[in-house]
Amino acid sequence: MSKADAKQNTGKPIEPAIKPTRADDYAEWYQQVVRAAELAENSVVRGCMVIKPWGYALWERFQAELDTMFKDTGHKNAYFPLFIPKSFLEKEAEHVEGFAKECAVVTHHRLIAGPDGGLIPDPKAKLEEPLIVRPTSETIIGASFAQWVRSYRDLPLLINQWANVVRWEMRTRLFLRTTEFLWQEGHTAHATREEAEAETQTMLKVYVDFAQNFMAMPVHYGAKTASERFPGAVETYSIEAMMQDRKALQAGTSHFLGQNFAKASGIRFQTKNETEELAWTTSWGVSTRLVGALVMTHADDDGLVIPPRLAPAHAVILPVLRGDETKAAVMEYVAALVKELKAVRFHDRPISVEVDNRDLRGGEKNWEWIKKGVPLRIEVGPRDVESGNLVVARRDKGPRDKTVMQKSALVADIVSILDEMQDAMYQRALSHRKEHSRFIDSRAEFEQFFTPKANKAGDEKPEIHGGFAFSHFSLDTKVEDELREKFKITIRNVPDDVPEALEPGTCIFTGQPSPRRVLFSKAY
Amino acid sequence: MSKADAKQNTGKPIEPAIKPTRADDYAEWYQQVVRAAELAENSVVRGCMVIKPWGYALWERFQAELDTMFKDTGHKNAYFPLFIPKSFLEKEAEHVEGFAKECAVVTHHRLIAGPDGGLIPDPKAKLEEPLIVRPTSETIIGASFAQWVRSYRDLPLLINQWANVVRWEMRTRLFLRTTEFLWQEGHTAHATREEAEAETQTMLKVYVDFAQNFMAMPVHYGAKTASERFPGAVETYSIEAMMQDRKALQAGTSHFLGQNFAKASGIRFQTKNETEELAWTTSWGVSTRLVGALVMTHADDDGLVIPPRLAPAHAVILPVLRGDETKAAVMEYVAALVKELKAVRFHDRPISVEVDNRDLRGGEKNWEWIKKGVPLRIEVGPRDVESGNLVVARRDKGPRDKTVMQKSALVADIVSILDEMQDAMYQRALSHRKEHSRFIDSRAEFEQFFTPKANKAGDEKPEIHGGFAFSHFSLDTKVEDELREKFKITIRNVPDDVPEALEPGTCIFTGQPSPRRVLFSKAY
Repeated sequence: MSKADAKQNTGKPIEPAIKPTRADDYAEWYQQVVRAAELAENSVVRGCMVIKPWGYALWERFQAELDTMFKDTGHKNAYFPLFIPKSFLEKEAEHVEGFAKECAVVTHHRLIAGPDGGLIPDPKAKLEEPLIVRPTSETIIGASFAQWVRSYRDLPLLINQWANVVRWEMRTRLFLRTTEFLWQEGHTAHATREEAEAETQTMLKVYVDFAQNFMAMPVHYGAKTASERFPGAVETYSIEAMMQDRKALQAGTSHFLGQNFAKASGIRFQTKNETEELAWTTSWGVSTRLVGALVMTHADDDGLVIPPRLAPAHAVILPVLRGDETKAAVMEYVAALVKELKAVRFHDRPISVEVDNRDLRGGEKNWEWIKKGVPLRIEVGPRDVESGNLVVARRDKGPRDKTVMQKSALVADIVSILDEMQDAMYQRALSHRKEHSRFIDSRAEFEQFFTPKANKAGDEKPEIHGGFAFSHFSLDTKVEDELREKFKITIRNVPDDVPEALEPGTCIFTGQPSPRRVLFSKAY
Repeated sequence: MSKADAKQNTGKPIEPAIKPTRADDYAEWYQQVVRAAELAENSVVRGCMVIKPWGYALWERFQAELDTMFKDTGHKNAYFPLFIPKSFLEKEAEHVEGFAKECAVVTHHRLIAGPDGGLIPDPKAKLEEPLIVRPTSETIIGASFAQWVRSYRDLPLLINQWANVVRWEMRTRLFLRTTEFLWQEGHTAHATREEAEAETQTMLKVYVDFAQNFMAMPVHYGAKTASERFPGAVETYSIEAMMQDRKALQAGTSHFLGQNFAKASGIRFQTKNETEELAWTTSWGVSTRLVGALVMTHADDDGLVIPPRLAPAHAVILPVLRGDETKAAVMEYVAALVKELKAVRFHDRPISVEVDNRDLRGGEKNWEWIKKGVPLRIEVGPRDVESGNLVVARRDKGPRDKTVMQKSALVADIVSILDEMQDAMYQRALSHRKEHSRFIDSRAEFEQFFTPKANKAGDEKPEIHGGFAFSHFSLDTKVEDELREKFKITIRNVPDDVPEALEPGTCIFTGQPSPRRVLFSKAY
């Protein structure tokens, strides 16, 4: 028996599987969880990540649920070119400012042998107009919409695209900020302003639903202030979640673009009265960043914890195989269990089970699945075959907290167990947010709230700040700039979901009247 | 009633919906079907296509079925960077030759305002090493595999990626050849040559299964000759289908890469005996090209015909809404029908139904769905509500060939109707291939078979050639080059699925002995 196994089987506290812990170094803890859960890793290409099978399976679960929600709200998927002609980015003035800066520029379409034997871009194959690898597709999709929309009968046009996009980043972190990332971008065109505004809200609410009911991650939703708007948008709405280090993470955005992009792209339609008008457009998106948000919301010092509704596998079965004489009986029992579990549906999806019969020590396998965050670990040994039992461990309990159950009881109860876990994860995240959210009514308290505090004695890089502050603010951009520069604090949004924040009051910075409170926080 | 409607309701032959017809101009007919079915269109970016909602829904059906087959054979999805460092392409000598030529080269990571007010690549943001937009991912995935594989316990490593790739093309055709296309690329690593060879065959057979049982498209499978191999592969296997113009289309490839890429990327593992060895790798892929193959296999002069097993919608319901008084009753009847049909499963998938209640004339809607190739069109009018009937039209019959059925009978029979259509489509394609395939044993007959013939008097661009020729050939590369240049004929593969072709004989070009026949054809 190795040291690691021995520790598991004694009464002593187990060392956390992830080092450093959250308390020790949150940023490094995050990277280690992503690595230990085998979600992703840095690639040899600067700023680009490799999404590993477990991480991609998780993203496929995000995609499957979101895609259903998009289709249920009338959207259809399509696919548009990866490349955007440089001139397209120049069309919408604010958009240029926002997106035409850090991006991958394709200038040649051929490599030839160079003087040193290697390959060089062929000077004869220089493109007349450089192409940009899409950082977002408003302009290129706008060009298609301009072709597709002729009459009011063609509206609304409700399109979504699943795609990779590239925004050149100097400082990257897996999932949270990478040069290439995967996302979905919805793009819609409407005959009236009201319809487009309603669409913006509908999709914002889809994101709220997904974050809260699938990711078990509470979010505040509302409009962004002018300085945080999507370049070219009339109004940007976001969902904002609180991570375990109390910083905010913007988890999805929905933009009402007015007629700005319709004008830039020429999306015009003939009305019922045979007049010609510009369409009203929207766009909305979430990305693989959500995987990072999931990690930072639920992972603990033993690794990832996946909410059951998004788990690539709801359970892993770990057969205890001791010698050949019992192996066949155990595997037969496991096969029967898999069949019974797969016949059960959890939120319209058959229970998904992995069987890990790799030739590795049990403790090693067990810890691997703890770190990967699979909701249930089920151990089956020779004695269980005789008794009809199995041993169940829940990821939301301690690593040694295991329950012996009848097989039939697990099959009967698995849905309620998973629902209970899902709900408990949401409640825990909600309590955390509640604990670190405050209505703040003076500048002094505000500054005190956001002053970095050491987590422990001798902490040289105190990082964790207060949390979410709901304060009255007169939207003075100078104050906004000052807060950003001095405290790295931004207005996350003007939340619509906090009734108490809707009362008018007085700006804590300027003394001017304020119609309602805004949400301040440090953010990713 | 318009002219178009009048034509529909008379006994006169209806003009084909697609002009030109297949017989008139096959290449142009193809483009017109793709356009009329709303599958895709050319984008403003040269060589890149926009995949429209119906085309993308079709591709999603391809993806869903293939993805299940990949997972059922033990593969897991992952995602690797879009960009490949130039030096990676230089690693594998043959691979350089094959792929480092026509590709999109990223040289800068920023745009700045230029002297004329527009944007230019920032000279200060020139990349030290250019990046290539992946034309295929062997080299970049190899870099990850080299990290992931340490011991024989890590093998086999069975990975698939769904992605976009770019190969700069001068002459493009929607789906068949575009600069950017969507595909899947499988990449696997194994401990032994035998295992890797078996994997190559397994995935080739998955493609055969998919082509024949889902696309209803018969294929010949077998090894490519040396000159047609994937750059860097030891052996390339392909599936080859005959299009309606009798040309071959390579519809999928599976490559046994030996240890070539393992060597270039450094994929080494420790064996059970603690020696270090290079892994054996494979790769295999199919792309959106398959959508083009589907069109050219099954579409007719009225547009697309989709095999039921891949149809985004199995049926469209066209309510006949005449005035408000009957509308509610018809829509209620339609809603009940939709519910009943969705409860039926066709090959493990609920029947998928579209309801087209757009405010357009019935004839116009009907023809739109004919061109889109939906298997069944179901008309429901006020009288049907009373009688419990409906009118069913099958896409594989004439546009005016409609059957009155009881609603209950349609619900009871829809699975067998769809299965019958699927089977008939395969049989029709198989007959076509049989009719235009020949065992040819002399050069004279071979040349005669491949001499272009005019389709009709006055045809100035005779195009359609004989079809598939199975002939003995001694694999003389000079002859191969001559045939390619003189007749544009290539060896598609050395088929394994034609028992009569496995007998030895004499090469019809050189008189040398030949172990078996090869498949010659013109090709896309």
